[in-house]
Amino acid sequence: MRHEIRFSGFGGQGIILSAVILGRAAALYDNKNAVQTQVYGPEARGGASMSAVIIDDEPILYPKVRDPDTYVIMSQQGFEKYGCNTRDDAVMLLDSDLVHDRPSCRYVGIPATSVAKKELGRDIVANIIMLGALTTATSVVSGGALEKAILDSVPKGTEDLNLKAMKKGQELGIQGESS
Amino acid sequence: MRHEIRFSGFGGQGIILSAVILGRAAALYDNKNAVQTQVYGPEARGGASMSAVIIDDEPILYPKVRDPDTYVIMSQQGFEKYGCNTRDDAVMLLDSDLVHDRPSCRYVGIPATSVAKKELGRDIVANIIMLGALTTATSVVSGGALEKAILDSVPKGTEDLNLKAMKKGQELGIQGESS
Repeated sequence: MRHEIRFSGFGGQGIILSAVILGRAAALYDNKNAVQTQVYGPEARGGASMSAVIIDDEPILYPKVRDPDTYVIMSQQGFEKYGCNTRDDAVMLLDSDLVHDRPSCRYVGIPATSVAKKELGRDIVANIIMLGALTTATSVVSGGALEKAILDSVPKGTEDLNLKAMKKGQELGIQGESS
Repeated sequence: MRHEIRFSGFGGQGIILSAVILGRAAALYDNKNAVQTQVYGPEARGGASMSAVIIDDEPILYPKVRDPDTYVIMSQQGFEKYGCNTRDDAVMLLDSDLVHDRPSCRYVGIPATSVAKKELGRDIVANIIMLGALTTATSVVSGGALEKAILDSVPKGTEDLNLKAMKKGQELGIQGESS
């Protein structure tokens, strides 16, 4: 089973780090193969940020993202670029305050940035809330693997904050606005 | 002209961030094409870290690293894995305190971690010293592009420290132990 996960948002949201953490979770702790890519294009020039992860049970011979089945979208611009032409069977997690449109595929809306700011005091962990939601809304990565990969990757001293964000995301992944 | 740059070291040295910054410099500010990849493998399980960037004047149709022409190596383990079988015409930047062996290809040894700690007070910027050295020891990225990409990528409040590290690396790239 091959999963292609596309992350998109704006600079400063931790879009690349999200992909790095997800790839690490899958490869090191879920015992799968993973490749994380970051293709710099014109969109990056506008302050947009984009990254991707391919996760597969088998070795990954073709490391280019062709047609994602999973999206994590944290800006309206990111939705406009990647969200309008998804596969019918794709799943999208979107920040429901920052993305105004809704996709034709299944989606889960998470008010990640506003919850990060209001309940956790730091909007910088919105990306970790989105990753937490990914573990309950999809099967691309397990909660246990994600927790370990977060602990490996976040700055020392911020572990508790990030684990709180992950758990908040897991709750919201079950309860969030969805189709 | 296609360049493949391989970074290797251990977790916490900023090996992935180095690749992200380099790709950003090339694509956004040197007007080239760039793909940054992070393949998670068994080596990552041992605390090793590895990343790569492909930079090309032409669109990158094949995003897999085949045979790097440029290496940035920040641990002895990284050297043992990637440094022993390089192309004869490759160039390697290595942290001369952390890597004990020397390659058969051309190399520049930079005491990045010890200079970062002793002269800048923070060993975390050793990777930025290595990137600075890359701009004077090779032509893969320009100094101006690197400076802008560093400013885009490092945490707010650390810009001066990181630019000092870059400039220190540029000096050391000229003066460092080399073959």
